[in-house]
Amino acid sequence: MLNTSNKTHFWSTNVVYQAHHVSRSKRGQVVGTRGGFRGCTIWLTGLSGAGKTTISFALEEYLVSHAIPCYSLDGDNIRHGLNKNLGFSAEDREENIRRIAEVAKLFADAGLVCVTSFISPFSKLHTKYLQNAGLPFFEVFIHAPLEVCESRDVKGLYKKARAGEIKGFTGIDSDYERPEVPDLVLKTGELSVNECLHQVLELLRDQNIVPSGIMEELNELFVPENKLNLAVANAHTLPTISITKLDLQWVQVLAEGWASPLRGFMREREFLQVLHFGNLLDGGAINLSVPIVLPVSTETKQELDGCAAVALEYQGSRVAILRNPEFYEHRKEERCARQWGTTCPQHPYIKMVMEGGDWLVGGDLEVLERIKWSDGLDQYRLTPKELKQKFKDMKADAIFAFQLRNPVHNGHALLMQDTKRRLLDRGYKNPVLLLHPLGGWTKDDDVPLDWRMKQHAAVLEEGILDPANTIVAIFPSPMMYAGPTEVQWHCRARMIAGANFYIVGRDPAGMPHPETKQDLYDPTHGGKVLTMAPGLTSVEIIPFRVAAYNKTKKAMDFYDKERHAEFEFISGTKMRNMARSGENPPDGFMAPKAWKVLVEYYTSLQKDK
Amino acid sequence: MLNTSNKTHFWSTNVVYQAHHVSRSKRGQVVGTRGGFRGCTIWLTGLSGAGKTTISFALEEYLVSHAIPCYSLDGDNIRHGLNKNLGFSAEDREENIRRIAEVAKLFADAGLVCVTSFISPFSKLHTKYLQNAGLPFFEVFIHAPLEVCESRDVKGLYKKARAGEIKGFTGIDSDYERPEVPDLVLKTGELSVNECLHQVLELLRDQNIVPSGIMEELNELFVPENKLNLAVANAHTLPTISITKLDLQWVQVLAEGWASPLRGFMREREFLQVLHFGNLLDGGAINLSVPIVLPVSTETKQELDGCAAVALEYQGSRVAILRNPEFYEHRKEERCARQWGTTCPQHPYIKMVMEGGDWLVGGDLEVLERIKWSDGLDQYRLTPKELKQKFKDMKADAIFAFQLRNPVHNGHALLMQDTKRRLLDRGYKNPVLLLHPLGGWTKDDDVPLDWRMKQHAAVLEEGILDPANTIVAIFPSPMMYAGPTEVQWHCRARMIAGANFYIVGRDPAGMPHPETKQDLYDPTHGGKVLTMAPGLTSVEIIPFRVAAYNKTKKAMDFYDKERHAEFEFISGTKMRNMARSGENPPDGFMAPKAWKVLVEYYTSLQKDK
Repeated sequence: MLNTSNKTHFWSTNVVYQAHHVSRSKRGQVVGTRGGFRGCTIWLTGLSGAGKTTISFALEEYLVSHAIPCYSLDGDNIRHGLNKNLGFSAEDREENIRRIAEVAKLFADAGLVCVTSFISPFSKLHTKYLQNAGLPFFEVFIHAPLEVCESRDVKGLYKKARAGEIKGFTGIDSDYERPEVPDLVLKTGELSVNECLHQVLELLRDQNIVPSGIMEELNELFVPENKLNLAVANAHTLPTISITKLDLQWVQVLAEGWASPLRGFMREREFLQVLHFGNLLDGGAINLSVPIVLPVSTETKQELDGCAAVALEYQGSRVAILRNPEFYEHRKEERCARQWGTTCPQHPYIKMVMEGGDWLVGGDLEVLERIKWSDGLDQYRLTPKELKQKFKDMKADAIFAFQLRNPVHNGHALLMQDTKRRLLDRGYKNPVLLLHPLGGWTKDDDVPLDWRMKQHAAVLEEGILDPANTIVAIFPSPMMYAGPTEVQWHCRARMIAGANFYIVGRDPAGMPHPETKQDLYDPTHGGKVLTMAPGLTSVEIIPFRVAAYNKTKKAMDFYDKERHAEFEFISGTKMRNMARSGENPPDGFMAPKAWKVLVEYYTSLQKDK
Repeated sequence: MLNTSNKTHFWSTNVVYQAHHVSRSKRGQVVGTRGGFRGCTIWLTGLSGAGKTTISFALEEYLVSHAIPCYSLDGDNIRHGLNKNLGFSAEDREENIRRIAEVAKLFADAGLVCVTSFISPFSKLHTKYLQNAGLPFFEVFIHAPLEVCESRDVKGLYKKARAGEIKGFTGIDSDYERPEVPDLVLKTGELSVNECLHQVLELLRDQNIVPSGIMEELNELFVPENKLNLAVANAHTLPTISITKLDLQWVQVLAEGWASPLRGFMREREFLQVLHFGNLLDGGAINLSVPIVLPVSTETKQELDGCAAVALEYQGSRVAILRNPEFYEHRKEERCARQWGTTCPQHPYIKMVMEGGDWLVGGDLEVLERIKWSDGLDQYRLTPKELKQKFKDMKADAIFAFQLRNPVHNGHALLMQDTKRRLLDRGYKNPVLLLHPLGGWTKDDDVPLDWRMKQHAAVLEEGILDPANTIVAIFPSPMMYAGPTEVQWHCRARMIAGANFYIVGRDPAGMPHPETKQDLYDPTHGGKVLTMAPGLTSVEIIPFRVAAYNKTKKAMDFYDKERHAEFEFISGTKMRNMARSGENPPDGFMAPKAWKVLVEYYTSLQKDK
């Protein structure tokens, strides 16, 4: 049973240690934050070169990134350690499988999803050793034709086997019996790694190993094409709730999946989780700090409570079905207090809440059509799915997102340029910037979306930001002016859309207190809270110090207390006043063409008066 | 190397499977919620019967309960599985150790603390196999004299070895070489399991494997006896902050460890975590939903900002030192909004906040003496440490806590009795009730503590609750009337004191809205939020349905909608009115002696007028 020296030689030269994709610090951060015992073994079987290790490591990375403890036992790695005293006699091969199965059961017992990738040509063998542990195991046949595996021949083993340098190589001169009743067959010759991964995740979801939210991380709520006619017909038979433009913006947010894993407007349970803990908690903590709710009047509640479904109607057309609606009290004072840290009725969003309905209705949303606004900007309203595709097409290896509701000045540009530099320093080859202006409701004195889009275009045109590595798209969410609470929403929505990095500056989502005129939030709290916020597992926060105009450099620069005299702070108010009066800002504050857009906007305002 | 049949026979008869203490659902709930990669191996070595498995399982249970992923590889269990084909030849013994070391490294690599308990008589051997994995390992010598191990002889193996039925038994006719440089030696013949556990935890803390908070779960902030004189002298050299009675109650809460792992009044970072996420987040989520802060005036801030330490003074005497103070803005409106869900200035606690200082000062607290109130009730003010000792003395195997700030009626008693019944049904032998009235500040119209204590005593005297299995103690916290936010505080503080079960009823910590007179909180929200709250890992919530007076049964009973007519709801107001007017409540509502106390109290009030 011990290896003979020539076997040792074979393995020491032909076995390559496979590095796990998941770093230790990553495991430490997230392992196990989704509750529930998930211990099981996923046994991958298939020829050398079929793709077992690829799928095993992809699965491990995916699960750990999604806070499911997982560990991959890899054929070659185990042969380097536990089983390095085994050769390839029939007896040793059985012992190899036996030991791995025993170790897999230990890992499963410890609560991990254990993925094994070994050729394991005889299903009866591993099945025998995995059975009766009282722990679930799943056999997955990694199925690629021998020709495909041989043509891949990553390790050059087939070549050696054909040349007779390796004896007893499975598929060449040793049998592979395909499993008779595998739990899953993955045709790796036909499917991409992601497609395979998806199928394994479906299996795990169906077997209640992972929560359903895990793979529908991005869940759109549109009715599928083939069921649309039926759904539209159905919607016309249902009682309706009339919704506002603001409500419709939230429908769009939900429909496109920005608030995944939400399946619709929040039910009371989700509402309470969000208000008290800033997270959805079922199936693990997922950051969601703002209520996404549909207020309705007492009359509507009385009329519709108990219905199985209602249709949502906007300006006379039915845009969505809300199934299994749940009515609960809209405790407005409490909601505003917890969401904004104030109940001041002059706060522009709170004002809308206070004027809205006394009940909330949660439920599962089926949205009948893509929400369009026909303002000439719909082509910029990319869904998270479309953004992810764009990033893929651009071969981005890092995506850093910048949220804004204001014109871009060179201080913003500085943050974005500096982030790109840092990412390149860290070894990323193709970082892409998502310049992502907020497109939903904003308060009256903010610059409207269409003008901001023109201004952003000018910034790119002037080369302040590199158009080749930038996507400009519109984030459909309304603005809430909720400071530290809202910045989390801004970040997590971009995380859903595939961003790995999120830039946060001074006083994000802030505004002056309507009564005291002081900052409604401490300007440092947004960055502080965001960097501490739980449930933002797959995004890294890049906090920035303040940028100000450096009079010596004639450019925006990171503010340095020691050189205070060199700096000038140009507030939003000051900027607006200059634009209104046609005065030019100092050189280097904003790209000239972009400034011109602002001047035009403020001039147009004065004409309107 | 394969086992011979007689070896198989030996192991199948002599190896007993050891059940882990940690259930799978438990692992699933908490594994890994404390961030940080902690993968390592703790290798226990020592004679059979020295206590390896006992310590290993205790450590595993402790770590998993404290959200550190851990898995224990036990000698006997491994011999049942992975190593069942090994005997006891020198070669097989080495192979046994080698395989275990390889598996331990895999577990450590997966981010778990792997604890192994094998006799492993040759330190060189396991050290050789564990080295160079790039993962920490610690050798712990479980040291008990052979006589002690032999006298324990739990498995009867020594007897067999002495009788010659087992050959090559370590310590009898086979060598045990004690490790030369173990990382730790545990003398299990002299120390208790808990003392040993504590030493291992200290090692892990010192090696940065576990966060320091893990073992100081209960951290008192009193100055140790031997440093008291020095600290008192020091306090007299420091500038002072004058504190109120309310502040002193919070000092008591902090000093006795109810808010562990807080080291003193909250710093801004902790304050923000609590307000936004209801949890302390550094070193893993630990529930803490209420700010524990010290407000000071702008003058005090200006005077003391920059000091290395200040003394806290109450009624002329210095009670504590606050080291490394951090002053930050007391954003009162925002704080109240987030803590209470209202900013209503007539709310009795909010009123105090609004009248208090505009700054908060956080820092590390050193409390100079036990806080006493000299009201005849100090003997009931047991610290968490004292409570834990009491539970131990009573040999309690389950502790269920009941928080109250009102007289006990038979509806409350019903919840407590029912909980006890359920715990007995679940197999606990000696559940103990912690009847734990709140003793800090309460609003004017609540029944004062001294009268409540008399009333509770009468309830026990009448046998409504069993005095033999009940501890009555006073919880020193002030009352905040913050509903769902506060009920978490009430629960987590009892968790710290050792409670495993916490009873929650209708509208905990609620009161009427001072303006609308409606319930300030939805009466169901407290129970809902508490059962969802993260960071309450070591306590189980027992939510209860409403109890009401059943007129047919003439007793308090769980309310049943179907039998509505049988029930009568006796509100606090109704009860107070009856007590004031000397009217008796219906039979079975409250123990007569306890009712008499209430009548006395309300009569005394009228006399005072």
